[in-house]
Amino acid sequence: MARSARRADRVAGIDLGGTSAKIGIVDRSGAIIARDRVPIDARAPFERIVEPIAEGLAGVIAAAGGGLPAGIGYCCPGFVDPASGSVVGGSENIPGMAGRSAPAYLAERIGAPAWADNDATCAAAAELAYGAGRPFGSFLLVTVGTGIGGGLVLGGRVWRGARGFAGEIGHVSLDPAGPACPCGSRGCLEQYASGPAIVRAWKELAGPRSGEAESPLDVARLAAAGEPAALAAFAAAGRALGQAVGGVVNLLDIQACIVGGGVADAGEVLLEPLRRELRTFAYPLLAEGFRVVAASLGNDAGLLGAAALAWERLGG
Amino acid sequence: MARSARRADRVAGIDLGGTSAKIGIVDRSGAIIARDRVPIDARAPFERIVEPIAEGLAGVIAAAGGGLPAGIGYCCPGFVDPASGSVVGGSENIPGMAGRSAPAYLAERIGAPAWADNDATCAAAAELAYGAGRPFGSFLLVTVGTGIGGGLVLGGRVWRGARGFAGEIGHVSLDPAGPACPCGSRGCLEQYASGPAIVRAWKELAGPRSGEAESPLDVARLAAAGEPAALAAFAAAGRALGQAVGGVVNLLDIQACIVGGGVADAGEVLLEPLRRELRTFAYPLLAEGFRVVAASLGNDAGLLGAAALAWERLGG
Repeated sequence: MARSARRADRVAGIDLGGTSAKIGIVDRSGAIIARDRVPIDARAPFERIVEPIAEGLAGVIAAAGGGLPAGIGYCCPGFVDPASGSVVGGSENIPGMAGRSAPAYLAERIGAPAWADNDATCAAAAELAYGAGRPFGSFLLVTVGTGIGGGLVLGGRVWRGARGFAGEIGHVSLDPAGPACPCGSRGCLEQYASGPAIVRAWKELAGPRSGEAESPLDVARLAAAGEPAALAAFAAAGRALGQAVGGVVNLLDIQACIVGGGVADAGEVLLEPLRRELRTFAYPLLAEGFRVVAASLGNDAGLLGAAALAWERLGG
Repeated sequence: MARSARRADRVAGIDLGGTSAKIGIVDRSGAIIARDRVPIDARAPFERIVEPIAEGLAGVIAAAGGGLPAGIGYCCPGFVDPASGSVVGGSENIPGMAGRSAPAYLAERIGAPAWADNDATCAAAAELAYGAGRPFGSFLLVTVGTGIGGGLVLGGRVWRGARGFAGEIGHVSLDPAGPACPCGSRGCLEQYASGPAIVRAWKELAGPRSGEAESPLDVARLAAAGEPAALAAFAAAGRALGQAVGGVVNLLDIQACIVGGGVADAGEVLLEPLRRELRTFAYPLLAEGFRVVAASLGNDAGLLGAAALAWERLGG
């Protein structure tokens, strides 16, 4: 597209997932002015992933009424180097992105500055700016899906870590004799409370009924109806989440845990056992007044968080 | 003592422990100009603990050449409310302090503003300002003694938590089926790696030799000489510390763990197994370049950290 002046009142947000990229033009209040979703082939090489995103972004810019955004925020799974925007690890599901910088490509292609961050960290930034995190100065966002990710807000600011890699609560070990995790450790939270772990627990417990649920939300529906094996599967996930989040509470003295990701659609079936188990694992004084709440931005958290990243890098 | 002008170049630091209070006059560089140690009776009521401290402080002020300090920093075990300076929990060993504000008493008695914080958090502030933390912007201080405490520095600043209670790494659960902890949780780090836990492990493993060591530093001496049961006791402590610190690394992406407290005098006997086990529990990318080092301020960490707190509250 032709280079043109950048508008100070708009940024772009892009959220790359395993099957598609969500693209939006977002104003300062977090309103999405125009949006699109571009399918991606997770096994494709870098250019065949980012060029369709660039084309989708150009389309969304036009649909929003023209004028380039002031900046472009981009988020994706894995460890993202904040300086270069390159993916430096944890991107096994989209191997073409490893070592490559989507924001460098998009900045050149679109003609606006671009930055990248991890998707769960961006989701925390979004919940802080526009969602369930607004009442809290300090909270942990946990995203429960195929894996478990996390983002931290401390003292009103996103904590990204010394190198930008903070938030890996999915790989906090809860039992040194627990199941081996692909990360190299043992007994990681992800082994007990991710979507696949919940389905696995259900299948082990349900016996002849195990065919009745194939996804964590299937199990959640059965749990909501009082099915004992489904309740037990979510109780186990809640216990692991309670132990992990309880440790974070004791370490950081934060005010809330916000639960997002696909499995969070299970609602109280997931949150209630987490709240109950927290009372065991968090120091009573630190647990007092602590809140466990559902994320409020749903599937838009990554896109809005990428936009929030752009606003932050543009200086507010 | 007579009220007089306060000197802008000096503060007082006080570190209350279970058997004595350390008191010092400290300059901006962290040099201790004058110091004293006042014995305390941990079972005495509040006034019989703080009045001797006030008298000791007046003496140290006189010994330093007179002139009131610009402010007084005070640290003690337990949870300290930053606004009032009152101990609001975790002070079972010195019950007279519960609910009472030593800094309020000292400010009135001495005639200088006073502030309080937890001792491990102050030790982290001291290592940041004057000690082993100087090379790092983000680190965890773990104090290993009768209990296990912690303090966090994130992005060059002490992280105290939403209410001032952060740092309780001793009560991060490492195993939901582990031993019960007085805090109400199970499998807390303190149950595996505190001084008493190391001695307990030694006694269980050493059989007929168990009488040869009665303190964690006795066990450390045997371990340094290659005694297998003593090595195994420290290996178990190192494994628990490695799991807990590995979780913190994955969550926070910090640069270092600084190990202090009485048991840290064991040196490499404690640090080497911690470093080794970290490689299991921390995500490889996050463990890269991570340092595990001994604290450098020894018994003065609390006193110097209390002084650092006073400098911080005075605005620099």
